[in-house]
Parts: sequence; C-alpha cells; structure tokens
Amino acid sequence: MNRVPGGFTAPQGFLASGLSVGIKKIRKPDFALFCSDRPCTSAGVFTTNRIQAAPILVTREALRRPKVRAVVANSGNANACTGLGGLSDARRLARRVAETLDIPRHEVAVASTGVIGLPLPIDAMLDAIPRLVSRLSRRGGPAAARAIMTTDRFPKEVAVSARLGGRTITVGGAAKGSGMIHPNMATMLAFLSTDAAVSAGTLRRLLTASVSRTFNRITVDGDRSTNDMVLILANSLAKNRTVTGGRDAALLGRMIEAVCKELAFQIVRDAEGATKFVEISVEGAKSASQAETAAFAIARSSLVKTALYGQDPNWGRVMAAIGNAGIPIREDRIAIDIGNVPVVRRGCGLGPGPEERARRQMRKSSILLRVNLALGMGKASVWTSDLSTDYVKINAAYRT
Amino acid sequence: MNRVPGGFTAPQGFLASGLSVGIKKIRKPDFALFCSDRPCTSAGVFTTNRIQAAPILVTREALRRPKVRAVVANSGNANACTGLGGLSDARRLARRVAETLDIPRHEVAVASTGVIGLPLPIDAMLDAIPRLVSRLSRRGGPAAARAIMTTDRFPKEVAVSARLGGRTITVGGAAKGSGMIHPNMATMLAFLSTDAAVSAGTLRRLLTASVSRTFNRITVDGDRSTNDMVLILANSLAKNRTVTGGRDAALLGRMIEAVCKELAFQIVRDAEGATKFVEISVEGAKSASQAETAAFAIARSSLVKTALYGQDPNWGRVMAAIGNAGIPIREDRIAIDIGNVPVVRRGCGLGPGPEERARRQMRKSSILLRVNLALGMGKASVWTSDLSTDYVKINAAYRT
Repeated sequence: MNRVPGGFTAPQGFLASGLSVGIKKIRKPDFALFCSDRPCTSAGVFTTNRIQAAPILVTREALRRPKVRAVVANSGNANACTGLGGLSDARRLARRVAETLDIPRHEVAVASTGVIGLPLPIDAMLDAIPRLVSRLSRRGGPAAARAIMTTDRFPKEVAVSARLGGRTITVGGAAKGSGMIHPNMATMLAFLSTDAAVSAGTLRRLLTASVSRTFNRITVDGDRSTNDMVLILANSLAKNRTVTGGRDAALLGRMIEAVCKELAFQIVRDAEGATKFVEISVEGAKSASQAETAAFAIARSSLVKTALYGQDPNWGRVMAAIGNAGIPIREDRIAIDIGNVPVVRRGCGLGPGPEERARRQMRKSSILLRVNLALGMGKASVWTSDLSTDYVKINAAYRT
Repeated sequence: MNRVPGGFTAPQGFLASGLSVGIKKIRKPDFALFCSDRPCTSAGVFTTNRIQAAPILVTREALRRPKVRAVVANSGNANACTGLGGLSDARRLARRVAETLDIPRHEVAVASTGVIGLPLPIDAMLDAIPRLVSRLSRRGGPAAARAIMTTDRFPKEVAVSARLGGRTITVGGAAKGSGMIHPNMATMLAFLSTDAAVSAGTLRRLLTASVSRTFNRITVDGDRSTNDMVLILANSLAKNRTVTGGRDAALLGRMIEAVCKELAFQIVRDAEGATKFVEISVEGAKSASQAETAAFAIARSSLVKTALYGQDPNWGRVMAAIGNAGIPIREDRIAIDIGNVPVVRRGCGLGPGPEERARRQMRKSSILLRVNLALGMGKASVWTSDLSTDYVKINAAYRT
C-alpha cells in the first residue's frame, strides 16, 4: 500500500466541487458536492447523539438502498434542531442534486456542519446547485474539502493505492473536524471514495471496523455532535474481482483504515487551539475495552489536558484520571511513561530526575503517554490534543 | 434556622488553628487543626476515586469507631501516590496530634490536598504540631480555613443555628474547593461541626443525604480527586435531647444540608477561573436520576461551558449535550429557558428576539439554565461554573 497524491478524487471516476453561497457570515467556501460519475455501492456510520440533525435522517434513509453516489454538503449551518422545516430543506437539496445529475434521489446523501438551530438559506443553496454540478472535476477535491471546513485551519485529504489481483485500487477521502470531536462521530464529516469493486455487506463491515479503530478513538473535548457521519462510495472502476472477504477484504480494510486513521490524526492535529498531538496508550488492562475506557478517561480529563498544554509532567493527574475511569485497577501496580521516560512505577513517582527528563519530552509537538495497569493483556490507544487558552477563546466566540 | 457568624468554630466547644510550615512553595498558611474540646460522635463521606490518598485510608480506619474529634489537615501536598511511606507519614501525623492533645489515636482524622506524588515534609510537620495545638482557639476558624486553601481565592465558612426542644443548636463548617470539583468529592475538603447531641447512625445518614444533594451536585471540570472528604463532628454540648430520628432529625438534616449547600456554592463561585455561577435545572425526565444525568451532561460539556463564558445563548450546544446524556429523550418535546427567557420549545429555537433577551440574562454573574424534557416527573439541579481562559492558565501552570 502506497500513499498517493490527492483525496476524495484520487480514485478513478470521482469528482468534486466547492463554492461559496453565503451560508457562513464571512464569504468563504461553504457548499460542496462529492460524487462518482457512475453508480456506487455505499456505506455509512453516523453520530450516536440522540439528537440527530435533518441531513443525518435523510442520508440514513438514502442508505437503505446502499447506492449513494453523490454527497451534497455544507458548512456554516448544521440544519439541526430545525424541526420539519429543516427536514424538508434537506430533502429538497437531495432532490435538486438528483435532478441536476439525472440520478435517482436515493443516490444522493446530504451532510451539514456548523451552527445548530438556524434555518438553511435554502433558496440560495438550491439556486447554486447547477453551478456546483457544472464545476465538478477530478481536480475539485481541495475546493470541496475546503468548503466543508468550519473552524478547521487546513483542509484534510489523503489517498492510498495498492495492487489487487493485477489491478490497482485506490481509496481516498476528505474530512472536516476541529472542536466537538469525540468517539462516535462528533462534528466530524468524512467522505471516502474507492474505485475498488466490493460487495455492499463487505464495504459496510470494513468501514464500521475502521471507524471503530480510528475516528472513534480520537477525542478533543468529549462532546459528540448531532451531525457527524462517515460515508464511503465504491464505484468498481478498478475492475478488480469483487471483494467479498478473505485476503482481498483484509487488504481493502487496511487501506480504508489507513485513510480513516490519517484523516483522524489530521483532525486531532487541527483541534481547536491544539498545540500538541497526544497518543494515550494503555496496556495491561483486564480487557481491550477496559483499556479503552482508561485511555479515554485520561484523554478527557481537563486537568491532564491543561498539564499537557503547560508541558508539565504532572503524572498525579494521570493517576487520578485512571482512578476515575471506573475500571478495576491496583494502584501499586501502575506504571506510567512519558515518551521513553519512566515516571511512575508500582504507583509511585520516580522523583525529580525522571520528571525533568519527561518535561523535555513534553516540549515536542507529539507526545506519547503510556500506562501499564499490569492486570491483564488488554490494550488500546486513543489520540487527543491538549486544552489551551485558545480552545476557550475559539469556543467562547464561535457564534458572536 | 438562622445564619450565624463564623464557621467550624461557631458551635460550642469547637476550636481551630492554622499556620505555615513551608509545605507550599510560597510561604502561606498550609497546616491546620480542627477539633472539639470534648469527645464527639462523627461521620464521613469519601472520594469514589479508586486511587485513594494515604490520609483517606487513615481517616477511614479512624472512623470505624465514629469518635473522631480532631482533624489535622494540610494543603500544598496531597500525600497521594506516595506508597507505604505516605501511609506511614499520615499515621505519624495522627499519632503525634493524639499524643499532644492526649486523646486516643482513633479520635484523630488526617486530610491532605495539593500536588500528587511528593513525600510530605514530615519532620517539619511533626515539629509544628505542638504550635498548632497551642494556637487552638474559638477564633481560629478563619486561620484554619485559610490554611487548607490551594488555588482558592477566599476561605469558605458558614454556620447556622436553630432551636431544638428549648435548646439552641448550631452547625458550622469550613471547606476548600477550586479545581477538580466533581460529584463524589473532588479535591474538596469540608469539615463540619455541631454542638447537637445526635446518635452516630443518624449523623451518618444525615451527612450522606446532605452530601448527595449538595457537594455531589456540583461540578467544575469533571475530575474527582484522590483526596476528598467531608467530615462532621458532633460534641453534644447543646445538651438537647439526643437526635435519633423524626422531626428532630429532619431539622438537624436541614441544617447540615444548608451548611453543605452554602459551602458547595462558595466552591463553585470560587472555581478556578470562573466568571459565572450556573444552575442547571432539568425537569420532566422519566426519573430523578435521569434528570441528574442530563443536568450533568450539560454541566460537563466544554462547549456549553465556553458558551457560558462567552455569554452566548448557544442553546444548540445544550441540545447536543442532552442528546449525549444517554437517557431517553424526545427531541420534539424539549424546552429550554435561559433565566426567564424561553429560547427553545418543541426542540426548535424561538428565533433571534428571544435569543437577544437571553443574551442579556447571560451578562449576570448567576445564570439559571432550565430544561424540560416533557417525558415524566423526574427533576434535579446541579451547579457549575463556566470554562474560561483563566481556568486553562491556572491549570497549565499549577505546579510550575
């Protein structure tokens, strides 16, 4: 598997476009179309928030027949908590895109991200759809990736290729992230594409597994949004033998996971106000799920995250977070390393020398925090950012 | 019931003292003694963090015979994650205080708060105990309250009196709070006193109930510390008929709850970097416990807390937090009021006019956020603060 240039439009037959229709207060790209020039097999994973925005409902409906080949997406307005009017708007967007592309309505998904509770400027959006369609191109990936950004500082794209049975298959993707990132899809949109031929059931299974190990293992501030989704469209243009299982599925799964992981890492790197990229790795738990619970308890602790921002090897806060995780632990067995520096063994600190060396490790922009609970074989890694004064400033001022 | 001056030493027969022994880096009061001049009945509630500091273990042991009448407390060092050495230090403190006061060792509790993982400067502390004892006085309450502060900006004290069967009974208390405040005792120490005569079982029951409705309903940053405890000492000097149940217990319970609630509110008002005191009230849930879950989901959301700091009536973040609470909801039934301004009905925003009025409400230093789920009769209130840039600054720099 090799990294290749581009993102969503890297695989054969995928097009995209982006433009500004004035949804955002400041004139920036805010309306995008991602699509395949021929029919697709598709799959999706959605937010677990019990409040689900209108586009989530419309896209879930469309995916009942997994033939989605186009996604119309906007930033600046989440179309969430907008009642029946919002639902009608989302349906109208899908219908107009389907008419303009001359494809069935159930082949169009809708995605929105931005402020909750305001009606979409639906007339301006409907009017812009012909322009969005006319601008579709193989080189439109960056424009589309830019048009789904909210507080993101950079567009997020990646693609990988590999050989499968004598054919080259490619998987690409674009995403938007920033705040409200937490497992189970938090104000996070990701659209993946592949020219591989793959059965609908296998595609769904591979996407779900990849998301659980990547997008669902990152957290910025513990919130989950009403709008998040990951979609993948597969158009079979690579003409490989259809992937249905076995080694072919394993390879395609690794490719999808690589794209999801890189997009997830870009989201963490671009987290609101973040100055650090932090991997929290917990091993020695009684199970993988307990390891994940402990890792998230550490990653979500405001006190740990401010210490990361302050470059302070304050392992006491890590211990306190582990104690709050609600999983079985033995205090006198816990080991903590910061980077490659042991700072805690048998639940006790190793003193100022190791702490000073750990402090130097914390000046790096990427920090690895390793915890060993010494109770079993369960392990898990999650990825997060620090909590900075800029995070607060960005989120205190987001709407005003 | 009337508010009366003073705190821990307001009830008859209670004494306190505080001084500096150099535990804190900057020379500030950091060592305190709270005690009764005669035997007590006592009760305690402790942190649920699975990592428990040495003083928690020693005080739990002492309370097996509920006769604690003295509490030796320090700030600047939590004596947590300090292994057997830390446990031995905590025991030595209790033993030296018992010897100096000439009382049994199981009548002395130990409490610590501050940085995790460093050994106590035990020799300086042991040497200072005779001075601490010699300074004990009815007027020592403020000095002791000050000596348990960490990042607190002001000492926290309150007392109330009432008539019971022809006698006046008083309940007083002192507390320290600031960061890491979350239900189930997060770096929070509170020491209550009363001159009422009360049975040990009743005292324990009343304290537990009061704590569950006060200290366990406040949250600042969702973390729970390794060191938190609430203790109450009752010395029966009021010579009332011993409270064992019925209306007498109801009255004493209201007094204890009033003291706990006022101390809890002072802690929220003094939360690290806080600019707002916020009550989150949820009603119409299927049960009181689901109402509490929803209220805490809102109170813990970083996005809600930064919006409170930014004085932005961003009810969409409140909706998203409710959706993340994991309890049954019907989006189209939710109502939200900010202060006395309705901003959401049937799950939809009421538009810019109400939002503008709500924005004015948010300029106040105390904000009431009310949610009605319209599903049942369950209700609960929790209290919290906003999340400010100062919170991050304080916690990024706490040890350095």
